[in-house]
Amino acid sequence: MPAPIDFYFDFASPYGYLAAEVIDEIAAKYGRVVIWHPILLGAAFKAMGAAPLPSVPLKGEYVQRDVARSARFLGLPFRMPTHFPIPTQHAARAFLWLNDRNTGLARKFARAAYRAYFVEDQNISEADVVLAIAAELGIDRTELADAMASGAIKDRFKAEVDVALARGVFGSPFFIVEGEPFWGVDRLPQLEKWLAGGPF
Amino acid sequence: MPAPIDFYFDFASPYGYLAAEVIDEIAAKYGRVVIWHPILLGAAFKAMGAAPLPSVPLKGEYVQRDVARSARFLGLPFRMPTHFPIPTQHAARAFLWLNDRNTGLARKFARAAYRAYFVEDQNISEADVVLAIAAELGIDRTELADAMASGAIKDRFKAEVDVALARGVFGSPFFIVEGEPFWGVDRLPQLEKWLAGGPF
Repeated sequence: MPAPIDFYFDFASPYGYLAAEVIDEIAAKYGRVVIWHPILLGAAFKAMGAAPLPSVPLKGEYVQRDVARSARFLGLPFRMPTHFPIPTQHAARAFLWLNDRNTGLARKFARAAYRAYFVEDQNISEADVVLAIAAELGIDRTELADAMASGAIKDRFKAEVDVALARGVFGSPFFIVEGEPFWGVDRLPQLEKWLAGGPF
Repeated sequence: MPAPIDFYFDFASPYGYLAAEVIDEIAAKYGRVVIWHPILLGAAFKAMGAAPLPSVPLKGEYVQRDVARSARFLGLPFRMPTHFPIPTQHAARAFLWLNDRNTGLARKFARAAYRAYFVEDQNISEADVVLAIAAELGIDRTELADAMASGAIKDRFKAEVDVALARGVFGSPFFIVEGEPFWGVDRLPQLEKWLAGGPF
């Protein structure tokens, strides 16, 4: 079996949302499996001395425009959320817990959470909003709420983020396949070339 | 006549080099003219609190890899220069002076200077190296040397960079067409879509 594609994403990342909509389809074309890894970029940004893009002078305004245009370029809906950026550990923990039980359902949840935030302007930083999104997919609200509040999932998520940082992940979306890192939804054409023909 | 494409580039920018190799051909496909604008990114980086990419923790290492891979993706030669980044005001001033006289020759010079730096590892921060590159294109060395050292061209270049900043240019390559900004060689597919079908 060919190596899987590791897909790292922050639920607060608009480019991560765009990637989440298309990565499974791209991978399937080349018989690859995708492993989804929610992360928080805060630690990486701190290490880089970076700030969330929209708050950077000059670049911030451009990025808002670029995200919306990139969505149209990919034929995907997008609306800049009222609250941005937001902390997304609740969504990430919910994903991790779901992913251990049902990877397909976890991805459905991830895409639904992304759309709730970047299309419907729901504030997914709130645990209740995350639980409501999951409930619509038939996920037991109480069971998930308990899992999200558990120390186990918190520790697990923290460790997962540390692994990502240790692998050199510093942005969202970020892909690693056969040790090769690809950063950004705009690197999908290069990732596809890699999948189609191997290292280039 | 359709609006021209403004193309901003720093001679120290590897992605700018890649763009310089392909932008005229892309524009010609859609009957557009390109106006080339050399800039220095120092002032924009200062405004953004940013550092040259290769010096940023985590991101720096990735970028070196990404530039080389992006070159291969576009089928262009590339070698990371020994000295990087470097100040490139000499090359920029030479370009400006040439461009007033012969835009085609100025572009030939720009591409030659970029290749000298990013393929042949020549240090184009040195005025002598810039003059030698120009001399190979038949440009009078003494005349160009005098122009590059003149206060007029220095003031002119400074003013041109100020105009770019005032237009919101903060990276290299940077394109503006019909008021729409596109940052990065990875935005060329979006620029092409724009040229082919108008705003999207």
